[in-house]
Amino acid sequence: MTHGRGPSDWLRPALRGVAPYVPGEQPAPGRQVVKLNTNENPYPPSVAVLDALHEAIDGGLRLYPDPEARALRRQASALYGVPDSHVMVGNGSDELLALLLRAIVDPGDRVAFPVPTYSLYETLVAVQGGEAVRVEFPDDWSLPPALARTDARVTFLCNPNSPSGTVVPLADIAALAGEVRGVLVVDEAYVDFAGQHALGLVGRCPNVLVLRTFSKSFSLAGLRCGLAFGDPALLAGLHTVKDSYNVNRLTQAAATAALADAPTMRANVARIRATRTRLTAALERLGYGVPPSQANFVLACRRGVDQAPVAAALAQRGVLVRHFATPRLRDALRITVGTDDECDVLLRALAALV
Amino acid sequence: MTHGRGPSDWLRPALRGVAPYVPGEQPAPGRQVVKLNTNENPYPPSVAVLDALHEAIDGGLRLYPDPEARALRRQASALYGVPDSHVMVGNGSDELLALLLRAIVDPGDRVAFPVPTYSLYETLVAVQGGEAVRVEFPDDWSLPPALARTDARVTFLCNPNSPSGTVVPLADIAALAGEVRGVLVVDEAYVDFAGQHALGLVGRCPNVLVLRTFSKSFSLAGLRCGLAFGDPALLAGLHTVKDSYNVNRLTQAAATAALADAPTMRANVARIRATRTRLTAALERLGYGVPPSQANFVLACRRGVDQAPVAAALAQRGVLVRHFATPRLRDALRITVGTDDECDVLLRALAALV
Repeated sequence: MTHGRGPSDWLRPALRGVAPYVPGEQPAPGRQVVKLNTNENPYPPSVAVLDALHEAIDGGLRLYPDPEARALRRQASALYGVPDSHVMVGNGSDELLALLLRAIVDPGDRVAFPVPTYSLYETLVAVQGGEAVRVEFPDDWSLPPALARTDARVTFLCNPNSPSGTVVPLADIAALAGEVRGVLVVDEAYVDFAGQHALGLVGRCPNVLVLRTFSKSFSLAGLRCGLAFGDPALLAGLHTVKDSYNVNRLTQAAATAALADAPTMRANVARIRATRTRLTAALERLGYGVPPSQANFVLACRRGVDQAPVAAALAQRGVLVRHFATPRLRDALRITVGTDDECDVLLRALAALV
Repeated sequence: MTHGRGPSDWLRPALRGVAPYVPGEQPAPGRQVVKLNTNENPYPPSVAVLDALHEAIDGGLRLYPDPEARALRRQASALYGVPDSHVMVGNGSDELLALLLRAIVDPGDRVAFPVPTYSLYETLVAVQGGEAVRVEFPDDWSLPPALARTDARVTFLCNPNSPSGTVVPLADIAALAGEVRGVLVVDEAYVDFAGQHALGLVGRCPNVLVLRTFSKSFSLAGLRCGLAFGDPALLAGLHTVKDSYNVNRLTQAAATAALADAPTMRANVARIRATRTRLTAALERLGYGVPPSQANFVLACRRGVDQAPVAAALAQRGVLVRHFATPRLRDALRITVGTDDECDVLLRALAALV
């Protein structure tokens, strides 16, 4: 009926070469593993969040959610001290990244980021038909000066960076915001585990967008919620391309409750930071180099020794970590900071392998 | 710091003229209104759905959802008799519409649809930089023959159509699928309220994508879930552009439970269809023409008489209906089929106005 035409004729030519983003393995339900591969929080979300969810489950689910997520944005405004006109809510910060590129990048436009970093940027730029400008991080993971001179319409800075866990100092970010020609996105998915953040640039620098997520520090990866902080005129562009009802009722209720109980999040973060210190020291005793992490994961590097077989052997023992088969990262493992017990299981398994 | 540059320099030039999709009004919580403006279901979702949600609220929310929504797709496969390889899940069918255009449409590519119809198509095509080809429905809302000859990469057919509520017969859709050059999207958001559906074309016609939503018949507008049924090669294109974790854990659990309790949905649909018959007859007695609706709303037309003042007067009396200020629809009101009581309130208010 379709006269011999097939899907390769239907899809955009630019998509044919795009490698989809590959998330870390999500084991089948019921499989007992120590899951240190996708930077989830080992501690459950606040009881106040679970209570708020139970309370939100009623016949009202038949109605559309608030398209502007007003209650959640007010709560974010109260916690972060940014006017709610400068806050936007997404179905995970991944959606906010995609909206940003759809709002700003036309085919051929440049998008710059230091590498290695969160590999989703690469996929999103390719989908949008943009040109990725990759600037290599130096060995010490400091901000590469060339990033300021790419003439890109969008510059991404994941800070703390994944997979290195390292941070670029705030003063360098402020300087970068003034130097780049286009929009600077500071992706702060892991910032609650660090000692600084860039929210102070919002309002001062109209070209800065700061992204946050509930998936890491707030233990809500399963609910999909992210926040964008930026100039209202910039957010208006993102609004034009977003689905009206992008964030469902339950996620809005849960995220609002999570922000209202920040002390629980901070207590979990403190435990994870303490475990991070222990884990880092133990990995160094095993002969790994570990860049100073300000995130809820560490990058364990064994210079010149491919870690793919180590990751595979760990998986066989029921311990999942993340390995990236690229030249720069081949000799490293990205390990989520789990509970102390989980990290002990990892360390025992690793000690038997190295 | 940004050298006098502003947001208008940052956004894509094509976005500057795009009118964002305007959803129907969502009244503030607590305001008592008869809400017949956004085609929500007046009956609550199945108790089995609420139970499944309560059960899914636990510490597991700290983990990412299944990126492939396997349990939900298996349940959809069982209910609809389509292999799960032919099913994809979205954060509402609105997300699936956006993914489809991002996968298929490059700037300048044509996207065709009969008008008037769901106005989001218009917005999504503009965002993607495509060229909208609008083919006017004839007065009897039958399929306009010119729709087959637009040479578009994507053709949308909302069936039952919004805002008319009318359906195009299945044989005409099958013929259209064979005639169009590109992909035919049959948007069946309202199909459970009708007497036919196009799922039988999936598998037979590789260029057909059928969309469903949980927002209408399943009473779950607040949870955001949609399904796409189509050829795996076509769905692979959509997968390339989708966020990995686009549908959260709770929505997956609720939608799976909703499909497992289809009888509750069908009982609600039967009540709404009975009320639709009553409402249609009463509107006709008030002097309105009503095209035969197979959806959970009706289009009440008073030829040549602008209905904007009527909609405004109804809103003042606490009854929200939808009015579209376009030449073709100016003299009509789109009225969601609520409960019998809600429709009686509407009819009394309307009788006092006309």
